[in-house]
Amino acid sequence: MFKVNDNYQKLPGSYLFSTIAKKVNTYSTANPDKSIIRLGIGDVTQPIAPSIIAAMHNAVDEMGNAATFRGYAPDLGYEFLRSAIAKNDYAARCCDISADEIFVSDGAKSDSGNIQEIFSVDNKIAVCDPVYPVYVDSNVMAGRTGTYDPKTEMWSDVIYMPCTMENNFVPEFPKETPDIIYLCLPNNPTGTTITKSQLQEWVDYANKNGAVIIYDAAYEAYISEDDVAHSIYECEGAKTCAIELRSFSKNAGFTGVRLGFTVVPKELKCGDVSLHAMWARRHGTKFNGAPYIVQRAGEAVYSDAGKAELKQQVAYYMNNAKTIKEGLKDAGYTVFGGVNAPYIWLKTPDQMTSWEFFDYLLENANVVGTPGSGFGPSGEGYFRLTAFGSYENTVAALERIKKL
Amino acid sequence: MFKVNDNYQKLPGSYLFSTIAKKVNTYSTANPDKSIIRLGIGDVTQPIAPSIIAAMHNAVDEMGNAATFRGYAPDLGYEFLRSAIAKNDYAARCCDISADEIFVSDGAKSDSGNIQEIFSVDNKIAVCDPVYPVYVDSNVMAGRTGTYDPKTEMWSDVIYMPCTMENNFVPEFPKETPDIIYLCLPNNPTGTTITKSQLQEWVDYANKNGAVIIYDAAYEAYISEDDVAHSIYECEGAKTCAIELRSFSKNAGFTGVRLGFTVVPKELKCGDVSLHAMWARRHGTKFNGAPYIVQRAGEAVYSDAGKAELKQQVAYYMNNAKTIKEGLKDAGYTVFGGVNAPYIWLKTPDQMTSWEFFDYLLENANVVGTPGSGFGPSGEGYFRLTAFGSYENTVAALERIKKL
Repeated sequence: MFKVNDNYQKLPGSYLFSTIAKKVNTYSTANPDKSIIRLGIGDVTQPIAPSIIAAMHNAVDEMGNAATFRGYAPDLGYEFLRSAIAKNDYAARCCDISADEIFVSDGAKSDSGNIQEIFSVDNKIAVCDPVYPVYVDSNVMAGRTGTYDPKTEMWSDVIYMPCTMENNFVPEFPKETPDIIYLCLPNNPTGTTITKSQLQEWVDYANKNGAVIIYDAAYEAYISEDDVAHSIYECEGAKTCAIELRSFSKNAGFTGVRLGFTVVPKELKCGDVSLHAMWARRHGTKFNGAPYIVQRAGEAVYSDAGKAELKQQVAYYMNNAKTIKEGLKDAGYTVFGGVNAPYIWLKTPDQMTSWEFFDYLLENANVVGTPGSGFGPSGEGYFRLTAFGSYENTVAALERIKKL
Repeated sequence: MFKVNDNYQKLPGSYLFSTIAKKVNTYSTANPDKSIIRLGIGDVTQPIAPSIIAAMHNAVDEMGNAATFRGYAPDLGYEFLRSAIAKNDYAARCCDISADEIFVSDGAKSDSGNIQEIFSVDNKIAVCDPVYPVYVDSNVMAGRTGTYDPKTEMWSDVIYMPCTMENNFVPEFPKETPDIIYLCLPNNPTGTTITKSQLQEWVDYANKNGAVIIYDAAYEAYISEDDVAHSIYECEGAKTCAIELRSFSKNAGFTGVRLGFTVVPKELKCGDVSLHAMWARRHGTKFNGAPYIVQRAGEAVYSDAGKAELKQQVAYYMNNAKTIKEGLKDAGYTVFGGVNAPYIWLKTPDQMTSWEFFDYLLENANVVGTPGSGFGPSGEGYFRLTAFGSYENTVAALERIKKL
């Protein structure tokens, strides 16, 4: 008789955003006259930029012509895209990353979930708390996290690094040495980040302790301050301890287009074993490349026209972030983030729990946000709003919140 | 100090098609004047059909317009595509599969590799021999296959079901009862298949023994005979024992477009645990949907125009299959397949090994095929040619082979 992977049964409840979707659905079914503004899930709203649309049309035409049709893509992704990434995201920032250290994928969520596969199940992970749920959940599924305590909402074999207003949202080196450290900077969900010199300390710590850093830089396009690193490879020694995950979802609005990439430096090894070779093997065995049309869209992100258009798009969302942050401050809220990231992290008022504030905001302002506790126990008492709505909706949502 | 997943180190050599690509590259570099015809990897060559191209252009335009832009897709895939699949692939064949039992993905290779994750690592798999390498390799990576014996080229904890000319390529029930049975029908690599009543026996066997069948129906569009099932759900009782994997790569030429789906019936359970719920959780945690543009392309596959165009495309490839099969027979080869599948499986002449024949064909006819032994020990002494080339190349390749 076949048996299932019992680790799945350890997962409490369902995925955060599914729960939110169900709650919102229930409310809107009961209140069909209410106009709901969604500033919850980190989904973008601005259309794909014109030069990227043109590149996709062109690629679609190529697929319809026998002379230019493309079948299976190269395992690691097309050279044209990997070269554009190496040049623009790395060489331009003085990071020595070559095109063949870049693995093109269908998005950072897949990579975030899959990367743990190449590590031993005995390894111990460390995560910031609050944290993007995929890091922990994918490790639960692999059996790496021990048992779950519903009271503390913590896993026995996960090292949590609280990031709260008390430590200015900067993770501290844990007492117990982890094997794998997940860092998302600029951070989802808190919208905060750390300086390049603080990141250098993490790189030094990982190299000293034989840990590997999974560095999620999905929000790097939103960095506005000079002393913040766009890539972990700006830090000395990162190539021997860090894997970097990147997304096109937030810098180019590709949430529905699907494209991302992972950098695994060839210098990153465990004894004689190359992690680059392992990830290449995984890619070659369990993945068949991102669509040609989408890889051409990715290439257009790095064209001069694409860069100019996307700079405007990022500015549009960051203007929303400013609107939310200042609006909330005016309304008396304590707020964080929104300077180097498109997320605003607020302290819930009147000692409400995160889910109480979720319900309060949904019912009284018809605004959907994300409860901080959904990202981990230290997120309790906080709440996330995203800058990815339209400007009009963002302004309207803040008007409603101010009236509460 | 972090450690890696040691199971990866057990994998012998590199992925079959990477090895072939390297050998061909070496030969063509040394012989730049030779024109090589590739009938090796199962990649299509015909362009995407006009009505699908039109649907993609339309979807690209939608993505460029704020009013019609689409961000994250629903977890399981868009309703418009899942409904079209349920209606055309299942209801039309009297299979009771609902739209919400269908999970849209970025392709059957990903699903083939990932599906094992929801099962216990203690489960024992059975595979046909020869077999599509992803089934075995993904189980090796998960630690489910025991140790590898380089002499026999077999894993200690895998149950092999030889499919050779001696048993007419029909797998027999193994002596040891497996937990998970992989069946790819019509078969890659042999190009052969079994009748619907033979498949019913496998369904009965699985239900009786508490096994689950992973049924890969990637080639169903090539079925030409009436007594062959297009879906395992045509068999009675399949919904309590089978998961079906489907691809758009071969019926619609989507190898570079990337789309597939997996059916997990709600009735499929292990005790009280729903495999449908587990796969939904995996989808929700480690995947973020196939691109909107690609899902619209998939929808167009089921339009009247799309169906008519793809019927022609399948006929084109099956004419190639006939050309190869008859050409090889004329040249004195013993050949199989090519009737319900786009693959021709031939017995190597003069007791050559599969790789000897690969080199012989590459060097003397400049034709690339796939060595049967690359698909498993019982593939030794066989060789695969695909019908996915252009007609002109197919004819030219056969002319060269006949002259040997």
